[in-house]
Amino acid sequence: MKEMEQMILSEGTVLPGGILKVGSFLNQQIDSVFLRSIGEEIARLYKDAGVNKILTIESSGIAIAAACGIVTGWPVVFAKKHKTSNVDGEVYATNVHSFTHNTDYTCVVSKDYLKSGDTVLLIDDFLASGNALNGLIDLVDQAGAKLAGVAVTIEKKFQGGGDSLREKGVRVESLAMIESMEGDGITFCR
Amino acid sequence: MKEMEQMILSEGTVLPGGILKVGSFLNQQIDSVFLRSIGEEIARLYKDAGVNKILTIESSGIAIAAACGIVTGWPVVFAKKHKTSNVDGEVYATNVHSFTHNTDYTCVVSKDYLKSGDTVLLIDDFLASGNALNGLIDLVDQAGAKLAGVAVTIEKKFQGGGDSLREKGVRVESLAMIESMEGDGITFCR
Repeated sequence: MKEMEQMILSEGTVLPGGILKVGSFLNQQIDSVFLRSIGEEIARLYKDAGVNKILTIESSGIAIAAACGIVTGWPVVFAKKHKTSNVDGEVYATNVHSFTHNTDYTCVVSKDYLKSGDTVLLIDDFLASGNALNGLIDLVDQAGAKLAGVAVTIEKKFQGGGDSLREKGVRVESLAMIESMEGDGITFCR
Repeated sequence: MKEMEQMILSEGTVLPGGILKVGSFLNQQIDSVFLRSIGEEIARLYKDAGVNKILTIESSGIAIAAACGIVTGWPVVFAKKHKTSNVDGEVYATNVHSFTHNTDYTCVVSKDYLKSGDTVLLIDDFLASGNALNGLIDLVDQAGAKLAGVAVTIEKKFQGGGDSLREKGVRVESLAMIESMEGDGITFCR
């Protein structure tokens, strides 16, 4: 998605430690007109995949998932992050390690909202190491649901998470795919 | 909004301690078609209020704010919750007490995304004691921005937060206003 690359180049900032800051248009502050375009693009990519549910994870995936939901009508479910692993039997739960914050958390979704008959599209803002998405895939597996694929706004390809998912046979669609970030320079995959 | 009352009556569950569970359509799982209607209704209510920015708080306000943003084009900013009060000088921060979880947290927004020229609409899912919204109003005040008003999907009027805001002169629009919840019975204000 050309528009996403242009937004990253004009608005994004590379911070030390390989962090790409896109707070001015994608998380923290959201450009709503652009958000709608993102929802439409993801809807276009997955229109023939039999999706009946979107699954995302709080917090920064929610607006993107909601945009796709509003365009398609597909209900959105969001998994919650818990510090503790004490969760009751009414939920599916999985452990996720966050590289960004160097902490573990438990990712939880109610059994009421993820079922064996569902065909699920996973949506998130970033795909880097892929830990959060692997956690969501585990939740989909636990529910016995079918995975349609993954859609993310920005993939940092050099961190390997996307390719690791593709090697497992997961369909991964990234609206912008970053090959490298060095200093202020951002190079996209071609 | 009649549709909201009908959804609460058909899908909502009253839990012990005065908790209204609406996870099947409003938080955790979101009915995307209904979400769009919510966005349109809030947009209609505030169309002449000069709003140029929506402010909400993670996590369950985000989808509602995004829906209103997509309908109107108004950018959405979401305040983040931090456990600690150690925040740097680049943010506005305020302390909020959560009755639901009986904890305090710091509510934070970057100074880059809230400015003195802004006219801000606050959006959240629930209005009960009003603590979260009072925190957001404090952030708007710190930025020297103008407050257009508040829009929430569900106000639990018997908890007093909405009336307390109205007494201060804040415009409060609630898509459903609950007068009382007793056992399974939910009564709306007329």
